[in-house]
Amino acid sequence: MQEHKLVTLQRKIGYVFENQKLILQALTHRSANKSHNERLEFLGDAVLGLIIAEILYQKFPKQPEGKLTRMRASLVNRTTLASIARELSLGEMLKLGSGEMKSGGNRRDSILSDTVEAILGAIYLDSGLAAVQESVNILFRSRVDKLDPSVQIKDSKTQLQEYLQSRQIPLPEYQVVSISGKDHAQTFQVKCSISSLGIEANGKGQSRRIAEQEAAKQALEGIQL
Amino acid sequence: MQEHKLVTLQRKIGYVFENQKLILQALTHRSANKSHNERLEFLGDAVLGLIIAEILYQKFPKQPEGKLTRMRASLVNRTTLASIARELSLGEMLKLGSGEMKSGGNRRDSILSDTVEAILGAIYLDSGLAAVQESVNILFRSRVDKLDPSVQIKDSKTQLQEYLQSRQIPLPEYQVVSISGKDHAQTFQVKCSISSLGIEANGKGQSRRIAEQEAAKQALEGIQL
Repeated sequence: MQEHKLVTLQRKIGYVFENQKLILQALTHRSANKSHNERLEFLGDAVLGLIIAEILYQKFPKQPEGKLTRMRASLVNRTTLASIARELSLGEMLKLGSGEMKSGGNRRDSILSDTVEAILGAIYLDSGLAAVQESVNILFRSRVDKLDPSVQIKDSKTQLQEYLQSRQIPLPEYQVVSISGKDHAQTFQVKCSISSLGIEANGKGQSRRIAEQEAAKQALEGIQL
Repeated sequence: MQEHKLVTLQRKIGYVFENQKLILQALTHRSANKSHNERLEFLGDAVLGLIIAEILYQKFPKQPEGKLTRMRASLVNRTTLASIARELSLGEMLKLGSGEMKSGGNRRDSILSDTVEAILGAIYLDSGLAAVQESVNILFRSRVDKLDPSVQIKDSKTQLQEYLQSRQIPLPEYQVVSISGKDHAQTFQVKCSISSLGIEANGKGQSRRIAEQEAAKQALEGIQL
């Protein structure tokens, strides 16, 4: 690792580590070394969840819990975190095992996104919540500013449809697989099939609509893994 | 609300509110009043997640992330939080709408558990992370002390089986519904049926075993809703 890259990274995240070993560990995938970033990621995921929750709580005092939850999910997800990782050029700083490196692990969303969380976990260990709040403000500011609670966040079926259309892949089919439970408390199971990708995903919910959304969400996750 | 109950509650949680309105809001279900506890619960859930994550991270320096995640799930779940709520006698302090009250809402696990989270969120707003950490230490200490990472936390199929046996309900049947994806990256869909309860739950995973566990987990959640 070239020293100047580490310096640049710490400038970009607005935090200079007291203990430089922590940032190195945060950049180490489990394929590379025993001292890897998985435990830091566990911590960082929780720290980030709290910080974004508080930002939304304070910024949107009139929005109900469900809206806050959806806005948080739109900020904290693999795709967004991987974008942030790319803005930080984390791919070229990651320490990966040779197999992972050959298979392009340093460009994979899952690995990139985990690394962002690990860095936040490392800051938390190094000097506590306030320091992570500052970094999160820097990294997420433009995305938080763009949030508009009056805009409905796109539902999963729409997201899935747009994703497939943009890649000229035939649209999914939804099918009710089962309906169970008593009349006043039925549970619907729906299957979402994207045959050209060989994907089948299931969803369940208290209405057909909810179950379809859930199945679409599962399918999206399956595609993006 | 009798004053002495509020005093006792604050003694039990080891925190006296600066702003007494916050604790009253935390005890108010959305069925009772516009100023209810749902947003506080959103915040409290995130605060609790971080605090427990950090306790486990520090207490078990050699445990991998997966183990920490499972241990956290064994501490932070509706059942445990509802037990804590009962230890705090929250049921008799809850402010519920008359419909919820008549239907026994003050004894329902979901409402009790949400209220514990709302109280933790209220402490966080009132004076920050350190104060919540103290309360969580008091409320969870005995449960954290009992954690033993060498004891395998029971997997979902075992939990489901034991749950059903203890209620003399016939055991579930598992059935592979579909196998999709290419040879080296197959996804299994498994259905878990508990016919006497009219429950069908689906699970998916990269092996039949994982999919069965996932289906059992969904079924358990369905039962315990």
